Amino acid sequence: MEEKILAEGEILPGNILKVGNFLNQQIDTDFLKEIGKEIARLYKDSGVTKIFTIEASGIAIAVAAGYELGVPVVFAKKNRSDNISGDTYVTKVDSFTHKTTNTIVVSREFIKAGEKILIVDDFLANGNALIGLCDIVKQAGATVVGAAIAIEKGFQKGGDMLREKGLRVESLAILDSMTYDGIVFRAQ
Amino acid sequence: MEEKILAEGEILPGNILKVGNFLNQQIDTDFLKEIGKEIARLYKDSGVTKIFTIEASGIAIAVAAGYELGVPVVFAKKNRSDNISGDTYVTKVDSFTHKTTNTIVVSREFIKAGEKILIVDDFLANGNALIGLCDIVKQAGATVVGAAIAIEKGFQKGGDMLREKGLRVESLAILDSMTYDGIVFRAQ
Repeated sequence: MEEKILAEGEILPGNILKVGNFLNQQIDTDFLKEIGKEIARLYKDSGVTKIFTIEASGIAIAVAAGYELGVPVVFAKKNRSDNISGDTYVTKVDSFTHKTTNTIVVSREFIKAGEKILIVDDFLANGNALIGLCDIVKQAGATVVGAAIAIEKGFQKGGDMLREKGLRVESLAILDSMTYDGIVFRAQ
Repeated sequence: MEEKILAEGEILPGNILKVGNFLNQQIDTDFLKEIGKEIARLYKDSGVTKIFTIEASGIAIAVAAGYELGVPVVFAKKNRSDNISGDTYVTKVDSFTHKTTNTIVVSREFIKAGEKILIVDDFLANGNALIGLCDIVKQAGATVVGAAIAIEKGFQKGGDMLREKGLRVESLAILDSMTYDGIVFRAQ
């Protein structure tokens, strides 16, 4: 992941790392397979029963991990849709990139008490999306076994804050700094 | 696909077929693999260089097809995002399910003149999303080799209209009617 970021990533104003050419907008399926295999390696002994992510760019990585772990994928939606019937779990998430607050929802039928949930997402920055997803799992009476993140912006501290609270957070690359002069990765 | 719809699909008011328990919201990854393999079987000789879909629920199927065909996946976004820099292709799409008009965008760098594009989506109803995606490919000077759809609502005629215009449209299941009494599939 670190090599791929250095080779193909692009830094935009406002602390935005653009990885649209391999991780979102355009997805390099060979690289995606490697991501799925690495997530499966990290969590293969955790008894994961389901993978949980949030639309849209989390879906590809979640599917890749679900393929390797052999479990279903559930994704939360960012707005209420006519297609979600009946009772839903709801929580609020602030988006760093889009500077908006989203209501995220998932049908109650898809996360059940007792399930062991792995949360997967493409980015982890201040941790708001991850906190929202954990909140939904908790509402359902299920357990979060951990989180698997493609790219963590370590300098925004969301990951460290959640690790201090006892959540297992595995990121395939952690950026400790990101300037136009270059990227510093955290040794893992 | 027909068996799965009969076993797990649910009909909601307003001609909505709910397949959230295996195709969106929750994705059955074993079944998704089968979908990917079937799409690859249909289009393996078409020289596809890239798969193009639209967020969010098209992404999983597009990734499954991309895995099997060994090509990258690009997805159009439904709104302009801070993360899409530079020039974009833009088109308008009316959503049947959400009763809204979306502006869909994709960075120009991801679809190039001369590419052979396979469009993949979960649903085909009146065909608006597919027309929008075809429009973007045309703007890019690339070629649409065809479309692969998980579930076509044949009674809404979008698929037939596009086939009459010469587009290859392959749907894994075509529903010719859908009432509370049952579903009639088109023989293929």
